[in-house]
Amino acid sequence: MKISLGKFRKIYDIAVIGGGAAGISAAINGKAAMKDVVIFESDEPLLKIRKAREIRNYPGFPKATGEEISEAFLNHIKEMDIDLKREKVTGIVREKNFVIYTQKGKAWAKTVILAVGLKSEETFPGEEDLLGKGVSYCVLCDGAAYSGGKVAVISDSEEGEMEAEALKKDYGCGVVYIPLYELKSSDASFSILKNRPLAFKPREKGVEVEFKDMEEGLIVDGVFLIKQFTSPGRLVRGLKMRGRHIAVNRAMETNIPGVFAAGDCTGGPFKIAKAVGEGQIAALGAVRYISQLDSQKMEVKQ
Amino acid sequence: MKISLGKFRKIYDIAVIGGGAAGISAAINGKAAMKDVVIFESDEPLLKIRKAREIRNYPGFPKATGEEISEAFLNHIKEMDIDLKREKVTGIVREKNFVIYTQKGKAWAKTVILAVGLKSEETFPGEEDLLGKGVSYCVLCDGAAYSGGKVAVISDSEEGEMEAEALKKDYGCGVVYIPLYELKSSDASFSILKNRPLAFKPREKGVEVEFKDMEEGLIVDGVFLIKQFTSPGRLVRGLKMRGRHIAVNRAMETNIPGVFAAGDCTGGPFKIAKAVGEGQIAALGAVRYISQLDSQKMEVKQ
Repeated sequence: MKISLGKFRKIYDIAVIGGGAAGISAAINGKAAMKDVVIFESDEPLLKIRKAREIRNYPGFPKATGEEISEAFLNHIKEMDIDLKREKVTGIVREKNFVIYTQKGKAWAKTVILAVGLKSEETFPGEEDLLGKGVSYCVLCDGAAYSGGKVAVISDSEEGEMEAEALKKDYGCGVVYIPLYELKSSDASFSILKNRPLAFKPREKGVEVEFKDMEEGLIVDGVFLIKQFTSPGRLVRGLKMRGRHIAVNRAMETNIPGVFAAGDCTGGPFKIAKAVGEGQIAALGAVRYISQLDSQKMEVKQ
Repeated sequence: MKISLGKFRKIYDIAVIGGGAAGISAAINGKAAMKDVVIFESDEPLLKIRKAREIRNYPGFPKATGEEISEAFLNHIKEMDIDLKREKVTGIVREKNFVIYTQKGKAWAKTVILAVGLKSEETFPGEEDLLGKGVSYCVLCDGAAYSGGKVAVISDSEEGEMEAEALKKDYGCGVVYIPLYELKSSDASFSILKNRPLAFKPREKGVEVEFKDMEEGLIVDGVFLIKQFTSPGRLVRGLKMRGRHIAVNRAMETNIPGVFAAGDCTGGPFKIAKAVGEGQIAALGAVRYISQLDSQKMEVKQ
């Protein structure tokens, strides 16, 4: 008897993207409601709080250091046995459940809480227009579409080297690697172009990457942009933004059913207690959403 | 040389109405921003949290009892030297600053944060229509208007006895006292009517209070309703409600400039961290409002 293990994939109830105050709070509350929760954080969790010299305004901790509050929060998720994955999320796609693509693989969840913080993301002219039409942020999501083709990988960190390698080996692509950082190793199996891209332009087949001081650009089938921070609007296709912030209502619902947001990524004030409160509200929303899903399934069965 | 001390009244920057999680959080954050803050709470502060057997979802306190979290919060306001007044607020009126009427007197503040929680308030038929036209909640605010007249005082607690006494002594009113509770003392200097009011009706002069099993009602110049909980819409005239909740935007602003709201009184989810987060946001709004006031004053001076 053969059992196809592939079909028995783990589906989390709630995937929290971001391990800051909002994300940790959301996870704690989701877990307190007996849900199966995972946190994805590429960096050290609670990094921003940890750096604070003194925090006077988080109730219950008079005159605490950022380090003390971080430790208390981390201890809380440890006590609750919450899964914390040190992986960078590169894309989230809605299928029957949400598929969370990370650099290391995929995960599935019934709901998503975005608590990704607020950083500025550099975008190239033409990047947004060509998204999904030659420009991608995620090799795992879109690599197959460029199998055997010619691609450029533009990256602001060493992460891009792995992605370039994967495109070459797994998808048989011809890869031109364009580092936006000081590249150390030079034994790469792909060609390297050290020049700063200026813009992307659509061509009959593929995309032209334009460069400074180069009369002719580089024409490729696809461009993979590997950024340390991807704005939430690009992480989740179709997510409604309000300027740099994710558009949410008071229930921390985004425009996509099942996707919630909390903390700095929804706008200021950029305070711990605000992030904590929003994380909690988002988690309650996710819990409610899951129970609605479950009751719909019950109805279908009957 | 005579100095008129009456003119040098203390004006708080922020008056927080309610000593639950939202109010305490608002006060802590206002004080952290170097503002002069007062909390009004008629009951024991944090009573609702204190009663919780176990709270698992307030970040930083895994598996704490309600008692432990309450103590940590109270310790925080003590450490910050925040003024906590055990007085019931009976009315808030906007003049140049906000005047906060309590059973014991008045206080003044530049901004108000309503964190009064959510309880159901029994209202009598006719009560809302006659508010300000014969029905009042506040002897200190409206007593003078009924000087020498005939009034009814309807109260759900012993507090009403003091108010009836004041109307008789300070304003020379003829008082009929209608207790909605088990009245203990019987040496009162005013008449007592033990019967449950059914409704209020407008009369040519004053108000008629109707009773069960009484063919004729009691006609008075004014009715004072002394309730342990007054809904925020009645506490602050003109405050916009959404059903039983105070209408707020994501910045916790109400429809009245300078008045903010936070916690359960703005609607669910009824969670500590949500209340804490909203209290914080409301306080930041109040701080911003005060700095705008200050900059306007500067402009006028120049």
